[in-house]
Amino acid sequence: MSERIDDLQLNNLKIIQNPDYFCFGIDAVLLSHFASQMKNNATVLDIGTGNGILPLLLSAKKSMKHLIGIEIQKELFELATKNIELNKLQNLIDIKNVNICDAHNVLNKESFDTIVTNPPYKKQGSGIVNDNKFIQIAKHEIKCTLEDIIKESNYLLKDQGEIYMVHRPDRIVDILTLMRQYNIEPKIIQYVHSKISQPPVLVLIQGVKNAKPFLKTLEPIIIYKDNGEYTQKIYDIYGKEPINE
Amino acid sequence: MSERIDDLQLNNLKIIQNPDYFCFGIDAVLLSHFASQMKNNATVLDIGTGNGILPLLLSAKKSMKHLIGIEIQKELFELATKNIELNKLQNLIDIKNVNICDAHNVLNKESFDTIVTNPPYKKQGSGIVNDNKFIQIAKHEIKCTLEDIIKESNYLLKDQGEIYMVHRPDRIVDILTLMRQYNIEPKIIQYVHSKISQPPVLVLIQGVKNAKPFLKTLEPIIIYKDNGEYTQKIYDIYGKEPINE
Repeated sequence: MSERIDDLQLNNLKIIQNPDYFCFGIDAVLLSHFASQMKNNATVLDIGTGNGILPLLLSAKKSMKHLIGIEIQKELFELATKNIELNKLQNLIDIKNVNICDAHNVLNKESFDTIVTNPPYKKQGSGIVNDNKFIQIAKHEIKCTLEDIIKESNYLLKDQGEIYMVHRPDRIVDILTLMRQYNIEPKIIQYVHSKISQPPVLVLIQGVKNAKPFLKTLEPIIIYKDNGEYTQKIYDIYGKEPINE
Repeated sequence: MSERIDDLQLNNLKIIQNPDYFCFGIDAVLLSHFASQMKNNATVLDIGTGNGILPLLLSAKKSMKHLIGIEIQKELFELATKNIELNKLQNLIDIKNVNICDAHNVLNKESFDTIVTNPPYKKQGSGIVNDNKFIQIAKHEIKCTLEDIIKESNYLLKDQGEIYMVHRPDRIVDILTLMRQYNIEPKIIQYVHSKISQPPVLVLIQGVKNAKPFLKTLEPIIIYKDNGEYTQKIYDIYGKEPINE
């Protein structure tokens, strides 16, 4: 075990991370920022919560009624549970050791206002497969597919409930067509570029269950200036010097 | 009639335009640049050719076998025909007064390598409707819908044939889902921003008939620098000072 405790420099939050599994990245931070446009006092589900980084960041940014994080990997589920306890957030946040494919057996139909998810980005069998089993499962669609997530989200969201997702731009056709197929209309999209002269590296998407079609594309988020420094936008989102990147 | 002749400053091409109908814009120029990645010596169809601007621009940028432009509006069809004659391109380019919905009655199945289209951007009944009938039909889905265009494109394209389209970012969910529905897989997408700090104003999409899923997102095209001058990219695309914008 090579656990370490990092200070999130936000509301005195701390997080135990274990590089044997994986550490959170800028995608989690950008998603928490993007998702903080959710309604106040929402009942929230985080699908694939990992070490609990999204629940922790959201707890500092948003007034929520309750948040459930589900994580299929037992070791990560245990780490996330420890992180919630470390930050004394047990009253607000529950972590459950559940596979999204079983969510409809464990969670109530149409019981969530908001879903957030930083899912595996890669199709099974595509891309470079990491030897580390934990990272494999977190990054590849081994235990659940994009379709599983969107199908279960339709089951779990209330009418007009929202899903916030971060993903890779090369999956955008899959994401948009699956959302529409399962009555979750894509409403907001925002691309994230490492530098403005380069293709996007991430994409943020908000879908709303049973909403009418009209997609709003936001201005791009640029991470680095040409001189390699972080942009003002990234400082604004982090509220400080970016960490753990 | 208030026709005027503009010099395209490209291969000595000239174009008759009539502001009573409409004049071409930067979208046609960007689409011709984007579409010039088509194979050499292709048989090409331009759906909704207007005054013939796309055929003219493509003739200067690409070696093509033959190009057919179809235009539903008789007055624009006549203007496009005059423009082809003015530039002595009758051997390369045919303009036909055809509605895309009737294309399968007039054009041969699976006979085109490449389709280009700058279709009406707005759904019928949405947005501000111009009083000018010609502009209404060119900009709103009055005579043909996005689905008509993509469905007919599937009929007209050869296996692995390509479609190049310019459209508005708010229609991207419709475009991507319809393309996939009609077996035209979206392969390349590129957003166009007026300024980098603003949402995109246009999107360029390449789809390939019967291709495997994998979408490549290119770096954004930025039209203006912060100081209001054109970016180098726009000079590169126009090959000179932009006109008619």
